[in-house]
Amino acid sequence: MAARRFGFLMFPAFEELDLIGPWEMATMWATYADGPQCLTVAATAGPIRCAKGLSVSADVGFADCPALDYLLIPGGFSAFDAAQDPELLRFVRARAATARAVLSVCTGAFVLAAAGLLQGRKATTHWKALDRLAALDGIAVQQERWVRDGAVWTSAGVSAGIDLLLAFIAAEDGAAVASTVQFNAEYYPDGRTYGDAHRAPQAPAYVRRLP
Amino acid sequence: MAARRFGFLMFPAFEELDLIGPWEMATMWATYADGPQCLTVAATAGPIRCAKGLSVSADVGFADCPALDYLLIPGGFSAFDAAQDPELLRFVRARAATARAVLSVCTGAFVLAAAGLLQGRKATTHWKALDRLAALDGIAVQQERWVRDGAVWTSAGVSAGIDLLLAFIAAEDGAAVASTVQFNAEYYPDGRTYGDAHRAPQAPAYVRRLP
Repeated sequence: MAARRFGFLMFPAFEELDLIGPWEMATMWATYADGPQCLTVAATAGPIRCAKGLSVSADVGFADCPALDYLLIPGGFSAFDAAQDPELLRFVRARAATARAVLSVCTGAFVLAAAGLLQGRKATTHWKALDRLAALDGIAVQQERWVRDGAVWTSAGVSAGIDLLLAFIAAEDGAAVASTVQFNAEYYPDGRTYGDAHRAPQAPAYVRRLP
Repeated sequence: MAARRFGFLMFPAFEELDLIGPWEMATMWATYADGPQCLTVAATAGPIRCAKGLSVSADVGFADCPALDYLLIPGGFSAFDAAQDPELLRFVRARAATARAVLSVCTGAFVLAAAGLLQGRKATTHWKALDRLAALDGIAVQQERWVRDGAVWTSAGVSAGIDLLLAFIAAEDGAAVASTVQFNAEYYPDGRTYGDAHRAPQAPAYVRRLP
């Protein structure tokens, strides 16, 4: 199989785990099961400060980004700004047109929506932004941890990108490969739910179903 | 309450999610529930390349690091090198002596061990390294997702640091605070287990107990 490439979009103040949870799964896929080469891409290569203060650096700029088979868009409050950035939207639209799949985590869904990629599709986002996504025309918002609609995959908030990636890997390369990734990342969460914040009325349906 | 500080140790080729999973939980704690100020620290401030290629940057060097209430040590294959670095071990020992707690994720346990901090304690690590940790004198290795022994907290591999942090936050500030963090990070994993990699004989006991 020709080497595949998976691009991870960065923009100012993106939410750390939105990108790096999926990044860890995808790079485990590359390391242990012949998965795609992974790289980070932003308007220009170089330093970016994340939402919670972590300092990271993008590998390549939009102009130098090689062809991508997959593109993931993280969220964060700043995703609403990213969704109004014409250059970023041009990049996302152009790459989505030739990619096998596009994925978003959390409010990264608003970037996909602004690029016209959620039109007529099912999608989800962070629970705080479900109403705002539902207010856009032509999107069937689902209150699930992650949603696939053809080549467009979206997830709920922050940590949900990890579950999204494992499901995506299973769909692309089979459950045995997802199993290898899951084992190496030792992703067997303890399933504890603390307190009762998740009983709030704004909690998404999949969370309200928790025991 | 005086502002607390939580240091996240970086060293060359540390494993991305080992640090950034806990970082996201700790910074949600800071943002939504008066948790500690979080910062990254390495031998010297500046760029570090992670195990899977992500480029990050440490906020402060050892010499400039302020007093820390908590210190977390990530893993990765390079943690075995970090565990032989006298300057890094001096830093960890000095900070552990005045911190309220030290935590490790994955093979970060070997740094704690080399610093003498696991002597006579229960601890855990990534499943690939359980035998190697058990071969060290004076450590009672547990095949659990995370282990607390007094002020020393250790977790299993990579993603287990997220569960570790929520448990730690609950212990420090109560279940209601952990609940707020969990809800904002939307950490309600879908609980899927792919394939049968986790049925391997080297899988830790807590994974072999999965249905």
